[in-house]
Amino acid sequence: MRGPSGTEPPRAPDTLEYVTFPVVGMVGGGQLARMTHEAGIPLGIRFKLLSDTPQDSAAQVVSEVVVGDYRDLDTLRDFARGCDVITFDHEQVPTEHLRALEAAGVPVRPGPDALVHAQDKGVMRARLTEIGAPCPRHRIVSDPADVAAFAAEGLAEGAEGDGFPVILKTVRGGYDGKGVWFVRSAAEAEDPFRAGVPVLAEEKVDFARELAANIVRSPHGQAVAYPVVESQQVDGVCDTVIAPAPGLPSQVAGEAQELALRIASELGVVGHLAVELFETRDGRILVNELAMRPHNSGHWTQDGAITSQFANHVRAVLDLPLGDPRPRATWTVMANVLGGDYPDMYQAYLHCMARDPQLKIHMYGKDVKPGRKVGHVNTYGDDLDDVLERARHAAGYLRGTITE
Amino acid sequence: MRGPSGTEPPRAPDTLEYVTFPVVGMVGGGQLARMTHEAGIPLGIRFKLLSDTPQDSAAQVVSEVVVGDYRDLDTLRDFARGCDVITFDHEQVPTEHLRALEAAGVPVRPGPDALVHAQDKGVMRARLTEIGAPCPRHRIVSDPADVAAFAAEGLAEGAEGDGFPVILKTVRGGYDGKGVWFVRSAAEAEDPFRAGVPVLAEEKVDFARELAANIVRSPHGQAVAYPVVESQQVDGVCDTVIAPAPGLPSQVAGEAQELALRIASELGVVGHLAVELFETRDGRILVNELAMRPHNSGHWTQDGAITSQFANHVRAVLDLPLGDPRPRATWTVMANVLGGDYPDMYQAYLHCMARDPQLKIHMYGKDVKPGRKVGHVNTYGDDLDDVLERARHAAGYLRGTITE
Repeated sequence: MRGPSGTEPPRAPDTLEYVTFPVVGMVGGGQLARMTHEAGIPLGIRFKLLSDTPQDSAAQVVSEVVVGDYRDLDTLRDFARGCDVITFDHEQVPTEHLRALEAAGVPVRPGPDALVHAQDKGVMRARLTEIGAPCPRHRIVSDPADVAAFAAEGLAEGAEGDGFPVILKTVRGGYDGKGVWFVRSAAEAEDPFRAGVPVLAEEKVDFARELAANIVRSPHGQAVAYPVVESQQVDGVCDTVIAPAPGLPSQVAGEAQELALRIASELGVVGHLAVELFETRDGRILVNELAMRPHNSGHWTQDGAITSQFANHVRAVLDLPLGDPRPRATWTVMANVLGGDYPDMYQAYLHCMARDPQLKIHMYGKDVKPGRKVGHVNTYGDDLDDVLERARHAAGYLRGTITE
Repeated sequence: MRGPSGTEPPRAPDTLEYVTFPVVGMVGGGQLARMTHEAGIPLGIRFKLLSDTPQDSAAQVVSEVVVGDYRDLDTLRDFARGCDVITFDHEQVPTEHLRALEAAGVPVRPGPDALVHAQDKGVMRARLTEIGAPCPRHRIVSDPADVAAFAAEGLAEGAEGDGFPVILKTVRGGYDGKGVWFVRSAAEAEDPFRAGVPVLAEEKVDFARELAANIVRSPHGQAVAYPVVESQQVDGVCDTVIAPAPGLPSQVAGEAQELALRIASELGVVGHLAVELFETRDGRILVNELAMRPHNSGHWTQDGAITSQFANHVRAVLDLPLGDPRPRATWTVMANVLGGDYPDMYQAYLHCMARDPQLKIHMYGKDVKPGRKVGHVNTYGDDLDDVLERARHAAGYLRGTITE
């Protein structure tokens, strides 16, 4: 048996060119880059990092760091020299710069034609609608009066009321609840238009809970799907992820995985794709957001899956065969650690580690600021209540909201 | 409930000093340092590396690297500035330098008084005998005639023969079969004495197999014991490790763990201790070697245990509570990847990853040289034959000795 790359005997010494291990260029120095580097070390992959500052989360742990501005094309071009492939910690690199890199022969994964769907919510909604992916009712709106018209369009014939509330989103630049407004009237709809960015209106979905379908796809078209997870938000920020989503009918889980795989295929995604979903009270799923990079809803895979999202992202961007995405435990829970009033999280390790010797702590090397994501914990086991309690206790103790 | 460090409320803002995350100084840039760094990233621990060259295995993946000679005390002193604790990739740092660092107030873990037992086989044997740990018959020998005398001393009363073969070891500087001689006569015993280092003679133990008992101990005296493993050697180099050791009676496994814990306690070991053991044909265990650092016989823990040896070594040297050492799978097998005739191991990834999506590859970033340890693979599962076959196939394919 031979590898998937061809039928020629690949390793006869007389025909073999010496190929060194590849260099992955990672744009962005956040925690996703940090954890992707961590996952690349065992594979012998070399990392080169383009970071805003030498203190960024990933810059603290990577040996080859270029400090520069990802919005500058010359910086990107210089950085790309010596990289075998470019991938991303975030989705903020201007689409036109990515097209310029591609035109210059640099493999960019995911490529700009895919990534634009994670950068621009207007493009994303238009394309998802085109391929028949279920979405909340939506359209681009031009001003508060148009928002009122959009709201009214959602009323069933003969229904009373004005159709509010409505969700407004700037099509670019939002994350973790930023760039998103919940408006109850046209009068409340002024703010989103001030930025001069197109505004997308979406119906307020009456959802039972939020789910995420995480998949990884490689350039040669192989794809793996992780179990569908439940994602619990607090104040618009992901708080807890439960893998797999408790009580989710296997048919709905299968639908969600197929939907994510189809989106990845139709959009040409390479690497990790997170499809954030609403599960409606009547049992349907609707796409909320897309992320084309390792994602908070996949952090549980570090300790709960056979292959983590980070390892599979590295394998995908290098077009290596993907690793098994199946879970290693009955239940895995991820709880985000947010900054609290106590800056010294290290001292809290003593209690957390002594209380739960199975606890998995993942800190990002970030300064503690109230509400900032500075780490997460993973727990796993057979009893969901116990697994949840351990994760929430540790995250709360590290933050300082639990003191016993 | 509070952490183990005291009874004072530790996190009242008015009494709290801001404590940044500690810096671990790692002396030596080999693969053990590389994998310890990898394990430290999730804990937010900062690493500083003293490496022989900028190309060393760990230097490729650590951000703060000092290139220097660990045999030079001034280099060590400079390196230790800004480190909260010093630990090691190898056991080659001169004992007197470690004492000097300790005298200057630098925490050295394991400390010189413990580490000397892993540096000097003569000191090790003397101390183990003193504490009643079972050892092969042994003594320091002065010349080939003395070796013949040592051999004869092992003959049962009235037995025929000369008592050879005998094992000779230089007390310092040996590893992986280097510095070790198997001699069948006094005439063959000339070489070991040429180096001018004391020579230890040991009986050739008629062992059934080799085992290893791995434990981790912290300064405050907490210790955890990993399952006892079977270690299979080829040409004096570790080839395969099976966790747990198949068919080992639980009483013998318990004895081996207790022995390792007792040695760690008596010798004041901090960090990971590997006790390499012979299991004799009549069911006894004898101590072969000690290693006071993460060890090849513990690499399986990266994918097969709840907490890896590397993570627990970091926690121990920082005096943090230790993580759960229990296995996550019924069987885990580690197979070392040695350099072969094909320098391009990366291309072999295609086949290995496609054949076994659960395979865990750990490469060290080292140039491939025939016989050199350049990586290892881990496999796990419920069927030992299958787990062994997968590990051996992958290691053999990466080396180039298996081509299908």
